Amino acid sequence: MTYCVGILVRDGLVMIADTRTNAGIDNIATFRKLKIVSEPGRRTLAIATSGNLSVSQSVISMLAEGVENQETGELETLEAQPTMFKAAQLVGRAVREVWRVDGASMKEMTARFDVQMLFGGQVAGGRLRLFMIYAAGNFIEVTPDTPYFQIGEHKYGKPILDRAVQYDTDLYDALKIGLISMDSTMRSNLGVGPPIDVLVLRKDALVPELDYRIEPNDRYFLDLRERWSQALRTAHIEIPRPPYGNNIPGDVEL
Amino acid sequence: MTYCVGILVRDGLVMIADTRTNAGIDNIATFRKLKIVSEPGRRTLAIATSGNLSVSQSVISMLAEGVENQETGELETLEAQPTMFKAAQLVGRAVREVWRVDGASMKEMTARFDVQMLFGGQVAGGRLRLFMIYAAGNFIEVTPDTPYFQIGEHKYGKPILDRAVQYDTDLYDALKIGLISMDSTMRSNLGVGPPIDVLVLRKDALVPELDYRIEPNDRYFLDLRERWSQALRTAHIEIPRPPYGNNIPGDVEL
Repeated sequence: MTYCVGILVRDGLVMIADTRTNAGIDNIATFRKLKIVSEPGRRTLAIATSGNLSVSQSVISMLAEGVENQETGELETLEAQPTMFKAAQLVGRAVREVWRVDGASMKEMTARFDVQMLFGGQVAGGRLRLFMIYAAGNFIEVTPDTPYFQIGEHKYGKPILDRAVQYDTDLYDALKIGLISMDSTMRSNLGVGPPIDVLVLRKDALVPELDYRIEPNDRYFLDLRERWSQALRTAHIEIPRPPYGNNIPGDVEL
Repeated sequence: MTYCVGILVRDGLVMIADTRTNAGIDNIATFRKLKIVSEPGRRTLAIATSGNLSVSQSVISMLAEGVENQETGELETLEAQPTMFKAAQLVGRAVREVWRVDGASMKEMTARFDVQMLFGGQVAGGRLRLFMIYAAGNFIEVTPDTPYFQIGEHKYGKPILDRAVQYDTDLYDALKIGLISMDSTMRSNLGVGPPIDVLVLRKDALVPELDYRIEPNDRYFLDLRERWSQALRTAHIEIPRPPYGNNIPGDVEL
């Protein structure tokens, strides 16, 4: 399993990814799922992946080597794309190319061609953007109405995002809320686990402001977990108990 | 979709069920999913259902008419079962009987034989118990380590249960926490919706202490929703922002 979240607020982009993979509950390993390509001053791009690890790794490798343009025969790289939109299209093409190579065999073996990606960043001259790319290579883009995307095990960590993240949320508050969302997910699904990779990319900086790995014993994160648990426990205590009396006849027949 | 939660604490049992059903997002209706059978002083039993509505309604109807015992030919009813365990077995037999009648045709039409049930209550002379019954008619029982079961859309509402419910939680705090869990679920999945049916059954009372329908405009529930949202928003504000600086080299190649 995997959990990744990307949040695009007014001041910048946050991307957070866990590192746990599992092929069955008895085969668990650590793989980095957040890849960053930065050429300071020119572009900073980041991809977070979920789904079948062979698919997502092949996409990443193919992007690193260049995706062959079927018409011209040339190898196209992320670095050569002039805009975020064209770069997202290239990621989509890489996904389709992996499908072209591996899709049929995987289908035959009933392995799902399952991949989802968050693709965020900025190219000089364009704006900071965040996309979610599907297994068909198509994609959607975040808008200020709902300024975040999740991939992987998204449900446990969604309530806090829904309530606390807005487009004008402070950049490091967005990081904090993203980490709370990650904590909720890790607590409920053992398939999502540390270390956690985080990226903070400030608007127009064109270089990562924070590129950090949170290790399992990280003091701030342990403190956040404990404070959040404590806050949840006390939050409900301050809500009055239900005042209800019966409003339905006591004996209801089946 | 559906969300039901049952919580068994030291002092009693709470069962909560939404009432929304949907056959596609454009076909939404209200159906009661919490059925209560009470013979005050003798037994109070409650069933909450999720899954395919035709299956769960057939199970409930069959339990009302009696489940035919294949060996003796007699009709067996919930009311005649001397213990909760035997009553849970009877619910399981009803599920299997519906499978026997409808299963093959449903499979042919690729309709999933999908049903899960919470079955809780007490029979005089026995203890208050809570079971989760699967589509195969087998079941598990709550223990004090994790004193709750969820069926249906369970993920959004699980973090608060994990953190706030223990076996020695007050009975009406358990109801309150269950309602918070329901609120989190309704907020994130439109397939789960009001009215909400709740049951509180105090240990050894053998009659429902609360058998209540929370309507969409219920003042207490609206207040709970608002207070909980507010609490979540303020809870994260009191957590310090992340203090991280880079610990990974700035430029990482794909």
